[in-house]
Amino acid sequence: MVEKVILAYSGGLDTSCILKWLLDKGYEVICLMADVGQKEDFAAARQKALNIGASEVIVTDVKEKFVEHYIWPAIQMGLIYEERYLLGTSLARPCISVALVEAAKKYDAKYLAHGATGKGNDQVRFELNAYALLPHIKIIAPWRDEEFCKRFQGRLDLIEYAKKHGIPVSAKPAAPWSTDANILHISYESGVLEDPFHVAPESLYEMTVDPITKAPKIPKRLSVHFSSGLPAAVVDQSTGKQYTKPFEILQFLNEVGGSYGIGRIDIVENRFVGLKSRGVYETPGGNILFTAHQDLEVFCLDREVLRTKQVLRNRMADYVYNGFWFSPEAQYARRCIEISQEHVSGEVVVELAPGYARAIARKSANKSGGLYNEELVSMDVHGGYVANDASGFIAINSVRIREHVRAFGDYEQH
Amino acid sequence: MVEKVILAYSGGLDTSCILKWLLDKGYEVICLMADVGQKEDFAAARQKALNIGASEVIVTDVKEKFVEHYIWPAIQMGLIYEERYLLGTSLARPCISVALVEAAKKYDAKYLAHGATGKGNDQVRFELNAYALLPHIKIIAPWRDEEFCKRFQGRLDLIEYAKKHGIPVSAKPAAPWSTDANILHISYESGVLEDPFHVAPESLYEMTVDPITKAPKIPKRLSVHFSSGLPAAVVDQSTGKQYTKPFEILQFLNEVGGSYGIGRIDIVENRFVGLKSRGVYETPGGNILFTAHQDLEVFCLDREVLRTKQVLRNRMADYVYNGFWFSPEAQYARRCIEISQEHVSGEVVVELAPGYARAIARKSANKSGGLYNEELVSMDVHGGYVANDASGFIAINSVRIREHVRAFGDYEQH
Amino acid sequence: MVEKVILAYSGGLDTSCILKWLLDKGYEVICLMADVGQKEDFAAARQKALNIGASEVIVTDVKEKFVEHYIWPAIQMGLIYEERYLLGTSLARPCISVALVEAAKKYDAKYLAHGATGKGNDQVRFELNAYALLPHIKIIAPWRDEEFCKRFQGRLDLIEYAKKHGIPVSAKPAAPWSTDANILHISYESGVLEDPFHVAPESLYEMTVDPITKAPKIPKRLSVHFSSGLPAAVVDQSTGKQYTKPFEILQFLNEVGGSYGIGRIDIVENRFVGLKSRGVYETPGGNILFTAHQDLEVFCLDREVLRTKQVLRNRMADYVYNGFWFSPEAQYARRCIEISQEHVSGEVVVELAPGYARAIARKSANKSGGLYNEELVSMDVHGGYVANDASGFIAINSVRIREHVRAFGDYEQH
Amino acid sequence: MVEKVILAYSGGLDTSCILKWLLDKGYEVICLMADVGQKEDFAAARQKALNIGASEVIVTDVKEKFVEHYIWPAIQMGLIYEERYLLGTSLARPCISVALVEAAKKYDAKYLAHGATGKGNDQVRFELNAYALLPHIKIIAPWRDEEFCKRFQGRLDLIEYAKKHGIPVSAKPAAPWSTDANILHISYESGVLEDPFHVAPESLYEMTVDPITKAPKIPKRLSVHFSSGLPAAVVDQSTGKQYTKPFEILQFLNEVGGSYGIGRIDIVENRFVGLKSRGVYETPGGNILFTAHQDLEVFCLDREVLRTKQVLRNRMADYVYNGFWFSPEAQYARRCIEISQEHVSGEVVVELAPGYARAIARKSANKSGGLYNEELVSMDVHGGYVANDASGFIAINSVRIREHVRAFGDYEQH
Repeated sequence: MVEKVILAYSGGLDTSCILKWLLDKGYEVICLMADVGQKEDFAAARQKALNIGASEVIVTDVKEKFVEHYIWPAIQMGLIYEERYLLGTSLARPCISVALVEAAKKYDAKYLAHGATGKGNDQVRFELNAYALLPHIKIIAPWRDEEFCKRFQGRLDLIEYAKKHGIPVSAKPAAPWSTDANILHISYESGVLEDPFHVAPESLYEMTVDPITKAPKIPKRLSVHFSSGLPAAVVDQSTGKQYTKPFEILQFLNEVGGSYGIGRIDIVENRFVGLKSRGVYETPGGNILFTAHQDLEVFCLDREVLRTKQVLRNRMADYVYNGFWFSPEAQYARRCIEISQEHVSGEVVVELAPGYARAIARKSANKSGGLYNEELVSMDVHGGYVANDASGFIAINSVRIREHVRAFGDYEQH
Repeated sequence: MVEKVILAYSGGLDTSCILKWLLDKGYEVICLMADVGQKEDFAAARQKALNIGASEVIVTDVKEKFVEHYIWPAIQMGLIYEERYLLGTSLARPCISVALVEAAKKYDAKYLAHGATGKGNDQVRFELNAYALLPHIKIIAPWRDEEFCKRFQGRLDLIEYAKKHGIPVSAKPAAPWSTDANILHISYESGVLEDPFHVAPESLYEMTVDPITKAPKIPKRLSVHFSSGLPAAVVDQSTGKQYTKPFEILQFLNEVGGSYGIGRIDIVENRFVGLKSRGVYETPGGNILFTAHQDLEVFCLDREVLRTKQVLRNRMADYVYNGFWFSPEAQYARRCIEISQEHVSGEVVVELAPGYARAIARKSANKSGGLYNEELVSMDVHGGYVANDASGFIAINSVRIREHVRAFGDYEQH
Repeated sequence: MVEKVILAYSGGLDTSCILKWLLDKGYEVICLMADVGQKEDFAAARQKALNIGASEVIVTDVKEKFVEHYIWPAIQMGLIYEERYLLGTSLARPCISVALVEAAKKYDAKYLAHGATGKGNDQVRFELNAYALLPHIKIIAPWRDEEFCKRFQGRLDLIEYAKKHGIPVSAKPAAPWSTDANILHISYESGVLEDPFHVAPESLYEMTVDPITKAPKIPKRLSVHFSSGLPAAVVDQSTGKQYTKPFEILQFLNEVGGSYGIGRIDIVENRFVGLKSRGVYETPGGNILFTAHQDLEVFCLDREVLRTKQVLRNRMADYVYNGFWFSPEAQYARRCIEISQEHVSGEVVVELAPGYARAIARKSANKSGGLYNEELVSMDVHGGYVANDASGFIAINSVRIREHVRAFGDYEQH
Repeated sequence: MVEKVILAYSGGLDTSCILKWLLDKGYEVICLMADVGQKEDFAAARQKALNIGASEVIVTDVKEKFVEHYIWPAIQMGLIYEERYLLGTSLARPCISVALVEAAKKYDAKYLAHGATGKGNDQVRFELNAYALLPHIKIIAPWRDEEFCKRFQGRLDLIEYAKKHGIPVSAKPAAPWSTDANILHISYESGVLEDPFHVAPESLYEMTVDPITKAPKIPKRLSVHFSSGLPAAVVDQSTGKQYTKPFEILQFLNEVGGSYGIGRIDIVENRFVGLKSRGVYETPGGNILFTAHQDLEVFCLDREVLRTKQVLRNRMADYVYNGFWFSPEAQYARRCIEISQEHVSGEVVVELAPGYARAIARKSANKSGGLYNEELVSMDVHGGYVANDASGFIAINSVRIREHVRAFGDYEQH
């Protein structure tokens, strides 16, 4: 009996060779391409897979799901990995995994296969997600398969294999780095980027223009509205045009953010498997939304609630990066963080300038005005605040500080 | 017997009136002006205080101490308050407090007086620092004094009082906000800024030019070197000029960062006394150093050490913001964080562009190259990594994830 | 016009003198006694207050509310302060505060008065609770009132004042410590206990017998049932008797726990006002419930959910101890912790022995058996676990450990 | 060429069969038995291994190293896993691993072998430690070897194999649980204990007597002295006998603690590999030391330093349990925690009673008396504390609490 495999297919050289290799192994292979917003000729890729021998090629458009069920919650939670990375790839993985698992159920396939490497995070994400959604699924990861790895020791081996089996190989030379693209971001890594002291070439960037030479010379203001921490609407103040559907909001912000060259980072990050890797990322729309949400959140949340929420947020960012989107801890953290966002509703004015976005004004949607109290903080009126109370507040706070001196002597001054 | 007061004097209207008011109360007043890098005509201010009746005016230059003992450690620790504010004012307070307390000891004064308001953080910082350094010191805080507050209900009352007592009042109308300046930053708050939805005017900024209209149109690259987390040298790659003394490094970065309009933020923050306040800050050199340090730190530190260090860092940032620089907990956190920085030595290339600085390359000063392992992460060689190990790693990590499904059913997919 | 005060009245010397003092100041005083389970002759105390001049004496039985709305949630959350104190007094304060504030509303009183000292936690708790529930309430705290404190410098001054004003003074000499009692615990502090090296006398204990000399010589087993983390039923295995109402459960556990001398601690703790103080506590029933809940919780919760929950729990314990039961952060933490308890349902067998209770068996109420998987952990069957997976798991976990050696040399061995 | 293996040998059935199996595979096997205080006839075990065919049997006494370099630091750090388990096995593993690695170096062996199972923590601990100390070591873990596991599917297979190869098999029937013993504790798991609702039989306990029937009927007081958090001396108050050497202290405390039946726990814990397992532990001396240290630590440490230290402690306990004693994060956490203990010096009086130990008095060794300030906390003298300061302290702390009501309405009362 022939076993069925659902293969996460990209249309590229690697997964095309994997497809052929799986067929050679005697599997029936159903290819799945999830459209998460990457630029791809899905029809051509579909035909390519069928030509190679896939029994079925599923192209599933999950762009809107990706925005609504993964990116929006990530913005709401304020997720950022190691303080800089907006988790563009990490968030797409569970969304794609759901599609893969649905296909496995529909076609009654016992196996999932993917082309992720053995040193990376994506293998972990795909597989943990798959085990979460279908605990008895079996995984085929050719790049961890000894025989496969021996056969394909480099790109040349893949090309040779492809040619031999009539798999079309792009005439365009491969970029000296690898890329992962979706509607939230494009990431670049490997190849010339492996030397962390080598500056990434300007030609690498695809979603954003060079902010210095190609961006508009005048700033643009956007009103970004949130409802309970979720992006609700974006208004371009220069045109008055308003966007309210999640997908449209992100698409608009990517365009306008990209035209300003916003959202580039070049970092070294810590992978879950214990390596440090260098990555370059472009996240124009995500950067704008993160910036706006962060501003509104501090504006709307009680100080101590914010402290606790950030602890949960940091844990959640690690969970998502490490592939634990579907896990007891992530489900728990997410529910807790969502509670914190109940009052994070309002408007932030974000100024776009070449290379960056900056919050410059904000207001609460709460009838009471929320926790910011203009009278209370005013230097001109007391607003109910009794200045003299601060004397006792300071004195009591100094008790421990002074006790330490009494017990152990003077503080070091440097 | 006449009691002596050390007054933290600024030369401005408020502390000049306070000086006079203290003299009227029968105190002998010694004024102290700490030069932390603010633009100030100290000679004129000195003469003004003497004219009003100060028995002594001390002008003490603590700029280098401020950079070396407060700003450098803050960069080393990566301190940032509520993820955005680089603590420019918070760090200056303990430095100034040391000068005040030294004066109190030298002149055998029982009292310290300051012009900080009753709603702010600075009163807390000055006083906690003073209690830490001289536990039996007494504080006079006129803006919390009922009689003083009744007499001076607004700026007009101060002006009238000044005129009546021959205190010169600047002909220049006061800015519609208040300012605190030092070599690390200038902060702006109050007045028109109290409305958080009112955009701060471009005319407000003093340390940075408008990045869009006034900054150079070509980027500049700097090499920023760190030794155990402390800035050690900065090289301007376009001129080859190198800066190694802390004060000179910061001065250079302020100039060049300011000329690019780098380091502006406009935020609402949570004060220690329980209020939310809006602040605008310019921190050009600090922003560049923070950016470079953050990049190198993630590059150099083990992932889990970084996690722990960031917990300590977040606590320390709160301590410093709240005025607890001299406290058992801050001394403890600082020692712990310093240990983490032993291996944070190397070079970061930072690109300055209009409005922002961005790390684009980095290398370790460690002979071994530090924890980044180009072979280990390479897609082309195994570098000692056995890809197949990841299968077991993922499988074991999935145990809890699958157990949760067995026990409690499917994960929610959104 | 006469202003009304609600006085938290205890019937004792202090609050009786405070009552008289308030009357002398011209206030109309309504006394409130909240029955939280302390042993008290409420009728006598009521008459005493009326005799002194109270215009009204409210005795309100909040015992059941205390158990259901404060103690039960505390057990569910696993609250413990500085790892030892079960927060008996801290939890009663918000419960009593609700009664005080309800009285203030009913009688339209502008003031609350209490007899808590200026060095303690209770003043903070009463007042923060009151401000939370009735933000414009005014507080009278005689033990922080300069005039009051000058007049009453010690117990003798109070006795003299009482005698002078016909306030009955107990013939029984006061214990050389102070006491706070409710259905959850009795606390002892001050007096001879202020010397932390002085061993507390056996005669001090009221809720528990001497475990060594007075407890039964045979152990007793109880089945303690929880539903979503809340105590649901307790069955005495020796009698078969079952208790299901919260108040009855706690009453039974106090009796039986007290008869075994369970739940005594003698600690030094950190007060919110910055002091260290020594306290002796008896919490027989609470100790048993805490022990049982802790056992079931680790049994039922996913490991990583438990880690996050404990972070929230530790914060919540501090909030409650410090008086922030009604606060944004406590409400938030509580909601998060409650979510974690959804699956904490089951039975724990607790063995009572002289001086301690110990969990010895447990099972989940979940149909699936919950997360404990006897087959999975068994040494005799594989239960779906592939032992060889552990090889890869360990290898990948060792990557960082080995990288550290490569980069920085050998680990210190001691 | 014959490859050498260092085998962690116990003398029992499993490792004797493993020894023979390794010899059959063609390895030269050097057995190592580390004496960490377990009751074992090392000479007999040595002979047994030689008889089976070991080329060398090393018996190394690491008891004192274990106490000084592992247990003492664990007490100093306050390590406890999931709030109950004192890490007796976890701490022994790195100590034994050092001996194994030293043997591997001395004999130039490329392999380490151990008899730990594939579902447990010990495999992880041994191997991570080995990789840390000798990054290129190779591990043989027969219980994860497919061929081995197929051959030996249960105890009977081992016995048959042993008999066939002349390996002596104990006539005594094996206990229906497995045991790990060292000077810090004995652990019991598996077998009948796998059912978490099955009460462990009294006959199981080896280090402690039944507290109810066999312990002395009178309590005993010990003075436990610490120096910078490390146990420095223990004095038996009833005999005056003093113990100062680490090994003797622990030995004495085990004896006396064992005679009182102190230190038994019965828990379900979370293993690193994702399982929940049930363990019964006896840790008499460790329980007494932990209790005493905890008491002194809260007594000596500043409140906020304690909070930070406990965060580090909780992380460290997980590191140690999971096998990361030699890791960047554990080395870092340990250094940070050690700093916190500088002032944790003094004496704690611990009362031993049947089944439990309890701290009842404590004093600091610091000349100033340390941070506990009897005058400051006294109800009879002010001690430098201004009661009225608490009014302002409370008022300012209430600002956020009241703002929340203004913005979002009343707090929920339950």
